Amino acid sequence: MCRVLAYLGEPIFLEDLLYKPDVSFVNQTHQAAFYTRLNLAGSGLLAWDARSERPDLPFAYRSTQLAIYDRNLRALAAKVRATALLAHLRGVPYDTRAIIHEQNLHPFQFEGARLALAHNGQLARFDEMKFALLPKIRPELARAIRGTTDSEWFYALLLSQLPDPHADLDALDIARGVTSALRIVAGIRRELGIRTFSPMNLFLSDGNDLVAVCYAYGLGHYDGLGDDFHPPEERVLRIWYTIGKSYGLYNGEWRMLSADEDASSCLIASEPLTRDHGTWHAVPLQHLVYVKRGGERPPSVEVVPLDVE
Amino acid sequence: MCRVLAYLGEPIFLEDLLYKPDVSFVNQTHQAAFYTRLNLAGSGLLAWDARSERPDLPFAYRSTQLAIYDRNLRALAAKVRATALLAHLRGVPYDTRAIIHEQNLHPFQFEGARLALAHNGQLARFDEMKFALLPKIRPELARAIRGTTDSEWFYALLLSQLPDPHADLDALDIARGVTSALRIVAGIRRELGIRTFSPMNLFLSDGNDLVAVCYAYGLGHYDGLGDDFHPPEERVLRIWYTIGKSYGLYNGEWRMLSADEDASSCLIASEPLTRDHGTWHAVPLQHLVYVKRGGERPPSVEVVPLDVE
Amino acid sequence: MCRVLAYLGEPIFLEDLLYKPDVSFVNQTHQAAFYTRLNLAGSGLLAWDARSERPDLPFAYRSTQLAIYDRNLRALAAKVRATALLAHLRGVPYDTRAIIHEQNLHPFQFEGARLALAHNGQLARFDEMKFALLPKIRPELARAIRGTTDSEWFYALLLSQLPDPHADLDALDIARGVTSALRIVAGIRRELGIRTFSPMNLFLSDGNDLVAVCYAYGLGHYDGLGDDFHPPEERVLRIWYTIGKSYGLYNGEWRMLSADEDASSCLIASEPLTRDHGTWHAVPLQHLVYVKRGGERPPSVEVVPLDVE
Amino acid sequence: MCRVLAYLGEPIFLEDLLYKPDVSFVNQTHQAAFYTRLNLAGSGLLAWDARSERPDLPFAYRSTQLAIYDRNLRALAAKVRATALLAHLRGVPYDTRAIIHEQNLHPFQFEGARLALAHNGQLARFDEMKFALLPKIRPELARAIRGTTDSEWFYALLLSQLPDPHADLDALDIARGVTSALRIVAGIRRELGIRTFSPMNLFLSDGNDLVAVCYAYGLGHYDGLGDDFHPPEERVLRIWYTIGKSYGLYNGEWRMLSADEDASSCLIASEPLTRDHGTWHAVPLQHLVYVKRGGERPPSVEVVPLDVE
Repeated sequence: MCRVLAYLGEPIFLEDLLYKPDVSFVNQTHQAAFYTRLNLAGSGLLAWDARSERPDLPFAYRSTQLAIYDRNLRALAAKVRATALLAHLRGVPYDTRAIIHEQNLHPFQFEGARLALAHNGQLARFDEMKFALLPKIRPELARAIRGTTDSEWFYALLLSQLPDPHADLDALDIARGVTSALRIVAGIRRELGIRTFSPMNLFLSDGNDLVAVCYAYGLGHYDGLGDDFHPPEERVLRIWYTIGKSYGLYNGEWRMLSADEDASSCLIASEPLTRDHGTWHAVPLQHLVYVKRGGERPPSVEVVPLDVE
Repeated sequence: MCRVLAYLGEPIFLEDLLYKPDVSFVNQTHQAAFYTRLNLAGSGLLAWDARSERPDLPFAYRSTQLAIYDRNLRALAAKVRATALLAHLRGVPYDTRAIIHEQNLHPFQFEGARLALAHNGQLARFDEMKFALLPKIRPELARAIRGTTDSEWFYALLLSQLPDPHADLDALDIARGVTSALRIVAGIRRELGIRTFSPMNLFLSDGNDLVAVCYAYGLGHYDGLGDDFHPPEERVLRIWYTIGKSYGLYNGEWRMLSADEDASSCLIASEPLTRDHGTWHAVPLQHLVYVKRGGERPPSVEVVPLDVE
Repeated sequence: MCRVLAYLGEPIFLEDLLYKPDVSFVNQTHQAAFYTRLNLAGSGLLAWDARSERPDLPFAYRSTQLAIYDRNLRALAAKVRATALLAHLRGVPYDTRAIIHEQNLHPFQFEGARLALAHNGQLARFDEMKFALLPKIRPELARAIRGTTDSEWFYALLLSQLPDPHADLDALDIARGVTSALRIVAGIRRELGIRTFSPMNLFLSDGNDLVAVCYAYGLGHYDGLGDDFHPPEERVLRIWYTIGKSYGLYNGEWRMLSADEDASSCLIASEPLTRDHGTWHAVPLQHLVYVKRGGERPPSVEVVPLDVE
Repeated sequence: MCRVLAYLGEPIFLEDLLYKPDVSFVNQTHQAAFYTRLNLAGSGLLAWDARSERPDLPFAYRSTQLAIYDRNLRALAAKVRATALLAHLRGVPYDTRAIIHEQNLHPFQFEGARLALAHNGQLARFDEMKFALLPKIRPELARAIRGTTDSEWFYALLLSQLPDPHADLDALDIARGVTSALRIVAGIRRELGIRTFSPMNLFLSDGNDLVAVCYAYGLGHYDGLGDDFHPPEERVLRIWYTIGKSYGLYNGEWRMLSADEDASSCLIASEPLTRDHGTWHAVPLQHLVYVKRGGERPPSVEVVPLDVE
């Protein structure tokens, strides 16, 4: 399971999210709090700045270098203030069969598309499902797949469910697309007789909206996951969010500055950025979260149940 | 077009093939004699030593580092004496869309298979052909594909045409398999209306036999290849071989020591390793070359026409 | 000899300098017009944007990946508009002894220093000079050296000649520092009996000022440079500049929009960015160029002779 | 502290040392038993095979890729049987100031030298000591330094203490050289007033002899090592060895096959390769270990106290 961080809100220096909190995103490379595996297969991010000159075009960076040692990432994080972010640390099994290259780094965003996806989790027996998904993917999107991850195939499948994959989508469109894609995967699992546990935490953004999914297929079905597989604690399966006026260092603590009426910033992540996660909320399993940026209004956060199987 | 070098014969230090001749394989990175494009996407080799303890297992090395700067390759070449070799330099368009990673480096050799493939050339409009090839590829071989090259898909297609893709094949079996795979590709080109020029020079070995193919689909059909495409000279399309007793530095010249009756070594390459190519022979277009190692007998080289369309 | 590009002036998207002109900086990787060697050892840039929130902190990016294939560089260039730039392509001999890593990539800028340096050229017999330079370098600056290039040592030497290496320097201070450092090198060459040709084209900026040096030690002394050394044409040794209102595509041509009185932008480079270099001027050998940004006034360009030996 | 493995003895497939035991060398990347830090800065090895054609020339491989994901290392380990080995995993602080590149990878072996060095530990305040060491290093050896590690400088210092650094040394010569180099470092520490704890476990081989040093300067002086420094347990500071007839899987356990009289193989490492380390011995601090290969006789192992301060 990889680590993901998503943000929508007031301008924030990337280093305040990626480096400074005690369970900072970059430190999750080797010391995630909820997760003992290392994330050693590289990192990627898309960071939008609504105030910049080409606001729809995010700063984009992906590298197989370890994030903890990556000077380019460090420099970018000190310079860019973002109003939206998708960031991803990739973890893969400790095995020479692991395929580590730039094309497998999240977030995925096809040329011409505005929507981007970062994923933590994995589809069991994906190698078998892969070509079965083909008929559900538009040919031009199937051809755009560059890597080998289940995540990128899922992204192509999701875009294929949208009326126009290159359009400026609102959160509801995105939510419909992802639900539809999850249903198709559920169907193929049934067809192929795959019941194995497969977590699919998904984080989607186009810089204006943010949608996150906390989903797992086959809860409780751990056959075929290997002898060294231990069913994860529920907090590991969940995704976590915090909302407020702005994220920062307040009274010696990295947290959202609380705000009753004018919450304008939201963080969603595979785990809280601080060991003290009193100000964070867990999204229940099989739920979807919307965050919209609406003109002058603050982002609203809505958590709704997902029914895909 | 990439550069390929194949060898079968007397034990030879890899450095005598890769580094020492004036158009040495490694120097073809930046100064191939027949070909002005640079080969900057990495290199790979499989080197068998019939006298070593696990003779069927080749020394294997692939790296996206430029061969001219690669100290690991240099060290291996100084230490290993091979009785068979497949070596490949990868060249790709000068474009950020190029996908450069280890999984795209030749020679391809799936786990458990003895046969390996290196390719120079490319299938026009491969992105469209790719999924059309799927029904002709055995599912377990399709799932073994790790990269994005036409070459690896062709390799999976070729193995799929063999009665047992993991068996110890003789040169005739290999030739049948490759011919059959080339025919399938020809059929799909017809189906999809693809007539564009597509060179397919193929080099196949399992350490005991060597088969090379000098083939091009759509000779003369250069539409769609871009304004800066220039039809290649015929010598560039051909593949070249030299046979003799042993390859080495004789009278200040890198060449095969000639041998009337006891020729025991054969080199086949996308171009000669020396500017003086008096001792090299060009394989005609649309031909296939066999080289067999037969017990006590020298390798025999046979050049036969290919009929696949 | 590497390739360097420096800019000071109106905000410009990096891609207009790095990618779009016909001899674009990135294309100089493999097809510099004035220089036939390839620049395959990586690239680096510092790009300041005077309008950004931390204007003294440049966007910084360095990678040993080939610039022509570097997606992160491409993405940055599409997003950042700079008011000052130092960019560098590194070329090294085609040899496994070449040391290619991030610490050898220009521009050099030590932690805490505002001034940065990019260099094309090289000091003959630098390995011998290196430790002789030590007494002239402040210990804390000597300890900040991370790589193995003559360029970085020269940078440490230059900073050591400044009253305060971390201060905000004006063009005149920079010019004095570089002249003083060049004199020290000249002295050490005399001491060690080194007379060999050693080009030292230097490009210095802190985001507000730009100083470039077109210098060569030992003109005409080509002993010891190897049999395959050919004395370079003078245009290769020179550096080139163009000034005007703004650089862009005007009437189908990439060039400076000319301006009589309000020239506000200046490009200096190791070669022009277009094959047509009618609008570019060559700096004579052994000269230094100043470009200052002065409040509301346009940058003034001044070319003065250098006397260091 | 990095991890090191050294071997002298009967031919053994590298994979039996690097991959198969439960605390295999490669697994020490992320799960060393004695040491909780990760070793993420690359790996290197020199493997001699006394039976091969250029027996003095080791197989050499170094890569900044993580060993656990390195297919080239895996392939080499499956093919090479070694009679001597030095292997090293590099660990550095989790910080973007860490300098990770091939030139910093152990074992160090200068061109023309037979002796190679791998080191675990580090010299406190090395940046200050570095240039003070210069007068004690032969100029041609100082110039051969390519990286930035204290280890490589120590290696150059050690070679400088030998009558002929390129000669075929016996274990006693090596021991004298290393003792002398340790004394010089002790002297410079006194000069500069450095008393801080600095472990220097050293492993030296030329393929025929093996010398290892278990040494630490400034035991008990932990000032200046940072707030998060915890004095290591003694077992972490020690080095460990095991001797016997041959290392392998005996009765389901990876260990040396014991041998009373004809012990012919010896492993020395920064920690045992198995969680059960009943068959391993710890070298006491401030001791040196010799292993010699003597014609027909088995290697003898001798542990002697070191007096350098």
